[in-house]
Amino acid sequence: MGSRGRVTLQTIAREVGLSKYAVSRSLAGKSGVSEETRALIRETAQRLGYTKPAGQGGAGEVAVVFHDLDAINSELYMQVQNGVQREAHRLGMTLRVRWTHDSGQLEELARSCDGLMLVGPHAREAVAAVSATGVPIVRFGWVDALEQIDHVGGTDHEAGQAVVEYLVGLGHRSIVYVYGMPGLRGRQERHYGAREIAERYPDVALHVMQFDEENGFSAAFRALVEKGIRPTAFFCAHDGLALTVVSELLGQGYRIPDDISVVGFGDYSPATQISPALTTVRMEGQECGAVGLRLLLERIENPRLPGMPARRIMIASRIIERRSAGPCKAAASVDAAEV
Amino acid sequence: MGSRGRVTLQTIAREVGLSKYAVSRSLAGKSGVSEETRALIRETAQRLGYTKPAGQGGAGEVAVVFHDLDAINSELYMQVQNGVQREAHRLGMTLRVRWTHDSGQLEELARSCDGLMLVGPHAREAVAAVSATGVPIVRFGWVDALEQIDHVGGTDHEAGQAVVEYLVGLGHRSIVYVYGMPGLRGRQERHYGAREIAERYPDVALHVMQFDEENGFSAAFRALVEKGIRPTAFFCAHDGLALTVVSELLGQGYRIPDDISVVGFGDYSPATQISPALTTVRMEGQECGAVGLRLLLERIENPRLPGMPARRIMIASRIIERRSAGPCKAAASVDAAEV
Repeated sequence: MGSRGRVTLQTIAREVGLSKYAVSRSLAGKSGVSEETRALIRETAQRLGYTKPAGQGGAGEVAVVFHDLDAINSELYMQVQNGVQREAHRLGMTLRVRWTHDSGQLEELARSCDGLMLVGPHAREAVAAVSATGVPIVRFGWVDALEQIDHVGGTDHEAGQAVVEYLVGLGHRSIVYVYGMPGLRGRQERHYGAREIAERYPDVALHVMQFDEENGFSAAFRALVEKGIRPTAFFCAHDGLALTVVSELLGQGYRIPDDISVVGFGDYSPATQISPALTTVRMEGQECGAVGLRLLLERIENPRLPGMPARRIMIASRIIERRSAGPCKAAASVDAAEV
Repeated sequence: MGSRGRVTLQTIAREVGLSKYAVSRSLAGKSGVSEETRALIRETAQRLGYTKPAGQGGAGEVAVVFHDLDAINSELYMQVQNGVQREAHRLGMTLRVRWTHDSGQLEELARSCDGLMLVGPHAREAVAAVSATGVPIVRFGWVDALEQIDHVGGTDHEAGQAVVEYLVGLGHRSIVYVYGMPGLRGRQERHYGAREIAERYPDVALHVMQFDEENGFSAAFRALVEKGIRPTAFFCAHDGLALTVVSELLGQGYRIPDDISVVGFGDYSPATQISPALTTVRMEGQECGAVGLRLLLERIENPRLPGMPARRIMIASRIIERRSAGPCKAAASVDAAEV
């Protein structure tokens, strides 16, 4: 509990409606705050009669580092960046933003920073090097099971569950989960979530279909059909894949959603550019960014002591119903195959 | 951004180091704050020259409602209650604490409250009735996939993954996941997490064993053995079950961990009462309670507008290594059965 009479950094922070972090750096004459903010804080501190305690203060400012080789998630990352920067502006902070996957650069950055938000699939060694500097980290990207690193992200697992529940509710019994590049965690999580729900319905089959440039959609789809599978719905690991699935199916003469329903994931701009417009799941990238920055500031202001558990914060997605999915109009499902 | 000269509730809150919520209620002459806090806030408001804006303010205070029929989780709930109350004290608040599962009582409480934290498996209809009142809710208990309700909890899924990873690292290849009462979500999540990891190792088999009072441990274990399964490790859905497993195995002449390793979940008091002391997973109930209350206050002070996504906050558990699990000393696993 603060002492009564004393004007602290927090008093000033609340008075001006900014973060304690911004006030602290500003009064220390450091970077990380805008000029407008700096003037406001200086005036307020003088008016309230603030006196500075004995020397303290961090080495740098807050940095947000995006993985620069992850093209598929670029639209999501732009949303995250937008959310982080809007929140930083609201709190009177400036940020260092970098795009890199280089472990050496990351480590160097960590040494001159108060905190680091890592966005994307940074390599285990790179994260370990950053952790070793002792600087607070929040990751937007996957962490290991029970790894003691703070994490912010979407609800991939729940999204997989909710989409299958949604399709089953529309009467679909033969559903295909489609993915492209194997091994990516978000896709895996959505698949596991989808599978958990499908398992609860004895008459629902969830098949898995993978295709890439060499083994295109047509060949993969033909292989399914040859196994006796007659899917009435596709759940695509990513909106980009859903574009391929919709256009290929249309090209083969299927009507969407009358013959086959298609659901995407992400709600990126192509979702409303294709016709029929995609029913998909909205990833809340901006909110992820804003909440991630706030968690990082909390950890900078109140460092996580040894033994204090790490936190996972997930921002709940929602299903956006458009026109690519509808009630199953097929007669009772004819496929009997298992995948 | 707050106006410069004006002393607001937030100015006072930061000045005294308490929550804005406590300040607001205190100055409105409402319950929900201790007498000591009330006096401090009154003095501070006078000293800073605070003037009250036009009439506003909530109907009640913050309530924490525990499900009263959930005996198995009672120790966890006590931890959560402890965490909520410590955080409330730190923020200068008092809480209404109730133990009930009755939908009518919940609804009545919601109507006289600013916010509600629901701890435990409250029924869907009860939660719906509370939600309909429009009061902010944070649940410690399961929510549906993508349900737009804020949730705080543990990392059950990750715990399942981490325990199997841990046992595989110790050389175990035939692992049994044991649970008692079926259908409980936390146990299911741990099982799904365990299964996902086991699937990655072609030479690891994860079997499932269920037993209850009628179908006790011995019968269930005998059934496994008759199928040719020779487990070297048990992962128990709950420390309470682990007590049964350890004592039954000891009674049958097995040495723990030399013949069979046992891992629990929860890290409740029996974990160190039994011998050998249990290797288990610590649920961070106190931190769940504290973080849940803070999220609830955030939602009361800045209500979630339509379209703003709900949040899931999970507090990362950790594996507590004691003496009930160790390296696998069996020759190459002999079981070939699948469950």
